[in-house]
Amino acid sequence: MRVRKIVNELDPYIPGRSQDEIAEEFGLKKEDIIKLGSNENPWGPSKKAISSIENELSSINRYPESDLSDLKKEIASYSGVNSSQVIVGGDGADEIIDILAKTFIEEGDEFIVPLPSYMYYEFLFKPYGAIPVYGKWNLEDNTLDLDSIISKINEKTKMIFLCSPNNPTGALVSREDIINILEITEEKEIVLVIDEAYFEYSEVNNVDLINNNSNVFIMRTMSKVFGLAGMRVGYGLANSEMIEYMHRIKPVFSLTKLSYFAALNTLKDKEYIEKSIKKGIESREFLFEELSKINSLNVLQSCSNYILIGIKEIGITAKDLSQKLMEKGVIVRDCTSFKGLDEYWIRVSIGTIEEDKKFLEIFNRIISDI
Amino acid sequence: MRVRKIVNELDPYIPGRSQDEIAEEFGLKKEDIIKLGSNENPWGPSKKAISSIENELSSINRYPESDLSDLKKEIASYSGVNSSQVIVGGDGADEIIDILAKTFIEEGDEFIVPLPSYMYYEFLFKPYGAIPVYGKWNLEDNTLDLDSIISKINEKTKMIFLCSPNNPTGALVSREDIINILEITEEKEIVLVIDEAYFEYSEVNNVDLINNNSNVFIMRTMSKVFGLAGMRVGYGLANSEMIEYMHRIKPVFSLTKLSYFAALNTLKDKEYIEKSIKKGIESREFLFEELSKINSLNVLQSCSNYILIGIKEIGITAKDLSQKLMEKGVIVRDCTSFKGLDEYWIRVSIGTIEEDKKFLEIFNRIISDI
Repeated sequence: MRVRKIVNELDPYIPGRSQDEIAEEFGLKKEDIIKLGSNENPWGPSKKAISSIENELSSINRYPESDLSDLKKEIASYSGVNSSQVIVGGDGADEIIDILAKTFIEEGDEFIVPLPSYMYYEFLFKPYGAIPVYGKWNLEDNTLDLDSIISKINEKTKMIFLCSPNNPTGALVSREDIINILEITEEKEIVLVIDEAYFEYSEVNNVDLINNNSNVFIMRTMSKVFGLAGMRVGYGLANSEMIEYMHRIKPVFSLTKLSYFAALNTLKDKEYIEKSIKKGIESREFLFEELSKINSLNVLQSCSNYILIGIKEIGITAKDLSQKLMEKGVIVRDCTSFKGLDEYWIRVSIGTIEEDKKFLEIFNRIISDI
Repeated sequence: MRVRKIVNELDPYIPGRSQDEIAEEFGLKKEDIIKLGSNENPWGPSKKAISSIENELSSINRYPESDLSDLKKEIASYSGVNSSQVIVGGDGADEIIDILAKTFIEEGDEFIVPLPSYMYYEFLFKPYGAIPVYGKWNLEDNTLDLDSIISKINEKTKMIFLCSPNNPTGALVSREDIINILEITEEKEIVLVIDEAYFEYSEVNNVDLINNNSNVFIMRTMSKVFGLAGMRVGYGLANSEMIEYMHRIKPVFSLTKLSYFAALNTLKDKEYIEKSIKKGIESREFLFEELSKINSLNVLQSCSNYILIGIKEIGITAKDLSQKLMEKGVIVRDCTSFKGLDEYWIRVSIGTIEEDKKFLEIFNRIISDI
């Protein structure tokens, strides 16, 4: 079979295990499983989103509109930009990443990303023949190693990904670092992608940069604060010229009809958004405080809806610990597959305070048994 | 901005007009508009699909499962293949086309498609640097011009697209033609994509070929008979080696949670499927018979859920005629943008018999006024 060389070199795909399988294997009820593995909003979706979906159920036999202008307008207003500076993706931010590659990447181009950071940039960029070049995220003080990025910039660099707050470490890229990188990248026309998937939990963002910097692309998702991970909606913000180019190759119908209405009506539900942020931050602070009481843990301070925890001192790998937690009905993220982390890190998403307490109880019991 | 050369050469994107805009412009009620432009199922979705969506509404804050095995099993059983021969796409068949490109296309590869046929292959393949090479579909007898395909095959050919029933002409590619093409393509390892988006309306399919021919890929959608155009679900069938390669680069979460359940439960609703096919064929036969009574029309016989109509003799362009129909609340497809058709063709999708009658009445009135 004449598949591309790059596909031949990729690892075979192994799907994650379904909730049903996990529940069955460990004799758990599916509804009792506490999901702290995927950085979702644990309080459920907006009621307005749900009722807007219900209103459209009888017309799901019809294609979505190709004109997403109402949604773009609402995103623009939420973000403080113009509609022409917005692009909407139909597979969360993942489709946006794919369109970035389709718009900019020629085979052999390099993109820079610090490690550890979100691994999916690489998964989506590699099929386009892009070459990942790694900078460094300092785990000691949870900051970007600025020089590790700047020193990697060369003629082949086409894009830089900065995730802020950074997944999985939870801290922001400082405004100063961003400005420093911007000064170098703008003249070289390197696209600086700032992934703000979790920005609401930090109450800081960099969207103002798109007005004066033609090379800045802000990427966001509705899978977190907006409670719509299952509906796969993401968006990007940039100067209108870049957005216009990206629209030329974006698939026209990739956002489902129900996703469109769910996104539009969640954006209009200001009370829901406000509460999601407030409760999210409360839960994070509670979790951080409680986890910090356990001396053997290396708990990283977070501006996001998850906390990275180093567990080396406990003397158990992340793989084994997450397995033990799963047996008790708690799913956390074993971070072994994150490049730039060793096998002793887990990432715990915020739950409701009740879920946090249950998790802490189970977690404490497990580590005191080791 | 250093966008790729190919993106620079593409036309700017112009979205279709929304139903609301059309309704407003012509003073129509949105619910009175008859939609015969997009080959949808006019009888609405399966009730089982709707209730399965309702059951999942409170958990759309959670990511979809990455393991689609129940859905793959159901598709396999419906299609008469094994689960390992199935891949599911999250943007209808469009994502499947994109994954085909990502798996097989190197810059400069050629793909062959007869004209007129579905134009979206080209839209999705061009960003990968693939070069379209055109064969011919004979409009006189509504058949594939076999030689026009075979004569274009060369060292650079990586893929051939045959749409059967062909969109927009409505006729099948004969089994004999497929076998002929297969004999040449298999040894050359050219992927033969048979797009069976509308196969249920023809009661003919070519799925048996995947067992003995490693280069055959059957592409299908749930946007037609299954009544789920708004949910964006498609699938592909091929030998398990090809499917395994494609899974390596397929985005993991592109199918929304609600789309998953809608697809699964529509597949289980055998009565709905059977009725959709039966009513679809009845409506097509009715429309064909009625349109054939109008002597000035060139009505092409169809095995699908739409009918291509040549209107040259009436002395009006498709653009003007579809505009006149829109003013009266009927949306049909102006086929001017299909390569291989001149400006005198419209495509009319089946409606309910009631909608067909309304359409015929309005249509007859308009053409008798010309």
